[in-house]
Amino acid sequence: MERIEQHVCFGGRQEVWKHASAVLGCEMRFAVYLPPQASFESRPVLYWLSGLTSTEQNFVTKSGAQRYAAEHGLILVAPDTSPRGEDVADDPAYDLGQGAGFYLNATEEPWAQHYRMFDYVTAELPGLVESHFPATTSRSISGHSMGGHGALIASLKKPGFYTSTSAFAPIVAPSQVPWGQKAFTAYLGRDPQNWSAWDACALLAAAREKVRLFVDQGEADEFLETQLKPHLLHEAAKAGGHDLLLRTHPRYDHSHYFIASFIAEHIAYHAGALSSER
Amino acid sequence: MERIEQHVCFGGRQEVWKHASAVLGCEMRFAVYLPPQASFESRPVLYWLSGLTSTEQNFVTKSGAQRYAAEHGLILVAPDTSPRGEDVADDPAYDLGQGAGFYLNATEEPWAQHYRMFDYVTAELPGLVESHFPATTSRSISGHSMGGHGALIASLKKPGFYTSTSAFAPIVAPSQVPWGQKAFTAYLGRDPQNWSAWDACALLAAAREKVRLFVDQGEADEFLETQLKPHLLHEAAKAGGHDLLLRTHPRYDHSHYFIASFIAEHIAYHAGALSSER
Repeated sequence: MERIEQHVCFGGRQEVWKHASAVLGCEMRFAVYLPPQASFESRPVLYWLSGLTSTEQNFVTKSGAQRYAAEHGLILVAPDTSPRGEDVADDPAYDLGQGAGFYLNATEEPWAQHYRMFDYVTAELPGLVESHFPATTSRSISGHSMGGHGALIASLKKPGFYTSTSAFAPIVAPSQVPWGQKAFTAYLGRDPQNWSAWDACALLAAAREKVRLFVDQGEADEFLETQLKPHLLHEAAKAGGHDLLLRTHPRYDHSHYFIASFIAEHIAYHAGALSSER
Repeated sequence: MERIEQHVCFGGRQEVWKHASAVLGCEMRFAVYLPPQASFESRPVLYWLSGLTSTEQNFVTKSGAQRYAAEHGLILVAPDTSPRGEDVADDPAYDLGQGAGFYLNATEEPWAQHYRMFDYVTAELPGLVESHFPATTSRSISGHSMGGHGALIASLKKPGFYTSTSAFAPIVAPSQVPWGQKAFTAYLGRDPQNWSAWDACALLAAAREKVRLFVDQGEADEFLETQLKPHLLHEAAKAGGHDLLLRTHPRYDHSHYFIASFIAEHIAYHAGALSSER
């Protein structure tokens, strides 16, 4: 592990680290914000998963989240969105390959060797964070778009591992929309039966315990009808008796300005869940 | 004028516009944030001048300022940092030419034709803003680094035009530091006598009316000793009996994380000055 950036921000420290990922077989970067409180005690961690084309930088430079993390004493961890490097398989399109890992473990060639983002973000990375930083083992997770999908499936596939889960404009049913169908076909193969293990709506339909989710969605989101389809998550939650708070916001689009406008409420939500757990 | 971006943000609108600048002789872009209050009444404007290498994007994507502008009902306007285009003179270095206009009116070739950023940001742009948006003629100005220099000289050269003035890590004495000496030699010629009209410390020494300035400076700023030298502004203010609030912040560096951490206080400062003026 090597620290490659360090900046004081809202009294805490915004850092970027690089490390050799054993799971992904390449060098990876992640951003970590350590709130002022982390100087004298261990604090819980909110993981943030970013959307297509993003790196570890997008959330920490554009969301304004550090102010709220400092207020609530949460550590923020933002990984990259795929394995990276010259010897890592890639595709010219923005929605496949590097920058578009979809937070799953690929089974198909040429992706299977490196594209294991699910294991990276839900196992290797928390292990690193909890051993190298003043972090407790209390974790929450959130994300945007492809990263909202990632947050939902991480939480649904590992019940109990995350204390609370939220998402901004998530891809809730990748098996049913073009972004997801393209990526899942490439990473998981053509048989849609192999997709349901990575599809939030399918996972929610199969969940045995009651699930609680908080989702914000802009009504002027340019991907709302084609790629996001939040009503499918609403229907799956209703059918299973799950607790979904789905807020829709008139006029807001898919951009980071939407995230910035509501990240304070998501961080307060996670901080509340994490503190009531202790 | 053509709007090329529009996003809802904190209940208001973050927009980017492009227009043909008569003063600069090229197409320019600027960002404008219209707070929710601007939907039903005219509001005062805070101009933000960015630092070396920046465009109109940096401040509005990274500072988190929209939250506070929405709270106080201020319009934010962030121009680019130089004239732009293929037929605009440039230099390979980051600190000269495009991205490095230094907010002055150049007299030397090949710069004199387009490099008139002072007239652009203090005359043409306010005229556009006040005729195209729900803006009053109450204006404040702030900026970072080269843009802090720009905010200081704009205010000092046009007494009464801006209600209040602040800066983050400004270049306070360009005539005495490498960034300024290089740019001023190129844009204004080799005679330092022609530089003092564009140097905040020299302008402050010559100011006839009492000036009020608010400056934040990080103590871990990597450019503090070589390029910024805030003590020179302190000495000039003290000698002239001016009112300088110069705050230094241990551990903070020159990055946008420093701006993000304190922009709330600058916006509150300007909002207070603008509201007491009415």
